[in-house]
Amino acid sequence: MREVYLENHANTRLDNRVIEAMLPYFREYYGNAQSMHTLGYASRDALEKARAQVARLIGAKENEIYFTSCASEANNLALKGVAQAYQTKGKHLVVSSIEHFSVLNAAKRLTQMGFEVTFLPVDHYGFVSPEEVKKALRNDTILVSVQHANPEIGTIQRIPEISAVVHERGIPFHTDATCTAGIIPVDVNALGCDLLTLSGSQFYGPKGAAALYIKKGIRIVPQIDGGIQENGRRAGTENVPAIVGFGVACEIALQEMEENRKHVLFLRNRLIKEIPERIPYVYLNGHPTERLPHNVNISVEFVEGEGMFLLLDQKGIYVSSGSACASKALKMSHVLSAINVDPAVGQGSILITLSKYNTPDDIDYFLTEFPLIVDRLRVLSPLYSYFLKTGKRKVAGPGTDYEHEHDYDTDRS
Amino acid sequence: MREVYLENHANTRLDNRVIEAMLPYFREYYGNAQSMHTLGYASRDALEKARAQVARLIGAKENEIYFTSCASEANNLALKGVAQAYQTKGKHLVVSSIEHFSVLNAAKRLTQMGFEVTFLPVDHYGFVSPEEVKKALRNDTILVSVQHANPEIGTIQRIPEISAVVHERGIPFHTDATCTAGIIPVDVNALGCDLLTLSGSQFYGPKGAAALYIKKGIRIVPQIDGGIQENGRRAGTENVPAIVGFGVACEIALQEMEENRKHVLFLRNRLIKEIPERIPYVYLNGHPTERLPHNVNISVEFVEGEGMFLLLDQKGIYVSSGSACASKALKMSHVLSAINVDPAVGQGSILITLSKYNTPDDIDYFLTEFPLIVDRLRVLSPLYSYFLKTGKRKVAGPGTDYEHEHDYDTDRS
Repeated sequence: MREVYLENHANTRLDNRVIEAMLPYFREYYGNAQSMHTLGYASRDALEKARAQVARLIGAKENEIYFTSCASEANNLALKGVAQAYQTKGKHLVVSSIEHFSVLNAAKRLTQMGFEVTFLPVDHYGFVSPEEVKKALRNDTILVSVQHANPEIGTIQRIPEISAVVHERGIPFHTDATCTAGIIPVDVNALGCDLLTLSGSQFYGPKGAAALYIKKGIRIVPQIDGGIQENGRRAGTENVPAIVGFGVACEIALQEMEENRKHVLFLRNRLIKEIPERIPYVYLNGHPTERLPHNVNISVEFVEGEGMFLLLDQKGIYVSSGSACASKALKMSHVLSAINVDPAVGQGSILITLSKYNTPDDIDYFLTEFPLIVDRLRVLSPLYSYFLKTGKRKVAGPGTDYEHEHDYDTDRS
Repeated sequence: MREVYLENHANTRLDNRVIEAMLPYFREYYGNAQSMHTLGYASRDALEKARAQVARLIGAKENEIYFTSCASEANNLALKGVAQAYQTKGKHLVVSSIEHFSVLNAAKRLTQMGFEVTFLPVDHYGFVSPEEVKKALRNDTILVSVQHANPEIGTIQRIPEISAVVHERGIPFHTDATCTAGIIPVDVNALGCDLLTLSGSQFYGPKGAAALYIKKGIRIVPQIDGGIQENGRRAGTENVPAIVGFGVACEIALQEMEENRKHVLFLRNRLIKEIPERIPYVYLNGHPTERLPHNVNISVEFVEGEGMFLLLDQKGIYVSSGSACASKALKMSHVLSAINVDPAVGQGSILITLSKYNTPDDIDYFLTEFPLIVDRLRVLSPLYSYFLKTGKRKVAGPGTDYEHEHDYDTDRS
């Protein structure tokens, strides 16, 4: 059966060049990077080469890159590490309400430890307003964290405007660039960030390696204490093969970014244009243009995300339903809630994220199969038959027992 | 040049079967283990298979195994996670003074957060006495952590006696089994532990995967917050290939443990017997028999560890000098200090750890080269020429400017 992988925000297929680069570090150069002998040096050299490659991708200095095992760890380090380091100055943090769970839940954990967190609202495109950020800042604010782009709805935040507002008050600013780094240009200076999270598994690198950029001068308390690895900021034997792969993925991304961006953008634009031509009552979530080049998030009325997801899976088409790694429950993601998508429509959401490996044929296949699947599901939908009969919508909100009539705007995109 | 890798406590060469098992998860099954589609299932199945393999190695249940990125992370999770979960009961912890830095420094971090830690002394073999543990326990003690064996001096603790004392008081007990699991039998029930750390990179598995066993009923606060991975106790995309490799390493270790143990024990015993036959004034650190089967730690008088280390490296022989991953400074490790090795002798320590890949030829090569190296270094030593001339020792303690006469016992082993 044909397989079409369209869940590249969860993680990407590895580039073969990345795998090839990693293999010697499994087979021959298995030394511990902290060892002082020849075999240790081989690992350490590889580590430092990778550090330079990561630094180059985001316009940082090598000694500002700290390797972690995943983006979630890097986000936890950023939030908890900075909070603990600056707590004598204040105990207030500001994060957006559509952050990845590793930011949101790290922030929530801090509230159990005596910190206060303001969760910023977003508009219906998912934008955080610099004005709202400004209003949220207090004299005891010690960190602001706003993601570079949202992995679900693809909206790219106007980070330079936000960081400027934050820096006016002399407060450190963190951005989770997990779904932008390696895909669109990310420059720590242009963005104006003091801390930035990135992960190689989002752009054809392996699982097991990510990094936190920490600008020189920013203090941070390690979250994994132990040895002197990563300049004392992250203990534990370095995962050399994964870090090598991460580095090579950064180098390839830098060289081929424009080409890859154009490639996925072309495919994405076809999806955004052609899905509504083939399926009525679909809505694009997120901003139509200020969005990730590889992201399509649509809500399909009168069906549930899970149903589409399962029937697509049967056709070998792999997408995400509703929220990415949030839960297996049939509820709308926190991101769609935050941008005020009607739950009745939001339940019928799927998320498609493209990669350089997707072909126009993949898109043709999807555009052929997907409308058939939606048709099949809508036939089963009492809400849809009611709508066809009456021209009106009958929507039971989740957790309620009443019915109400509801009229939609035309396509929100 | 011949290469002889004798630093297998830092990490081991990977078993080819482990590498082969990992490769499909780089090449084909690159899905996120949290994804609900077919490709996600492949990753999730692999993860659960590995979890069962890890559980079997240590006599645990599958749902008691929590994957982390390294043993340091697992140790941090054990100490900080339990401390945070039980802090309403008390804020006192007990750890031994010869733990790995990821336990020691996690404990020290906790002291900055309002916890109190008792660091237990050890005897000159490195044993923690159950009596000392008993004395250290208080009504507000919420965790005791004593390593199963020491990676540097190889001493295997009498864990069942220690855990019994701890459990009499109803206190959770953690053991860091990083340097025993996969090498000697480790059974969580026989040891009587509530939490146990193990790492695949110690027994022919890859870097990037380790685990914390958490007995059912033990509460723990996650240290990496975010998604629902690892039953909500460790967020972040699972490093599927590394975890698969870890699982296979566990399975192989279980099958071949006795054979491997005999193999390294034979080689180790040759080293312990023949080194002093070929080099005068050497001392074995740690217990002569209750020690890891692959561990030799010796102090060589009148030379410095660094010198031996470097000249061995030139011969392609890779060992550790002084303390493992502690520091590049010329000072004695905290373990040798804790067992009261004289600093003047302790500075001349090297640590040799064997693997199943070492051959009798490796040992011959080492036993030929090493005495020549020690001779070469002793020729340069004014302390040695003084000793040869006078039959007396003239030792300048580190950081002091006085000289004193010092007489040694005969070989301490």
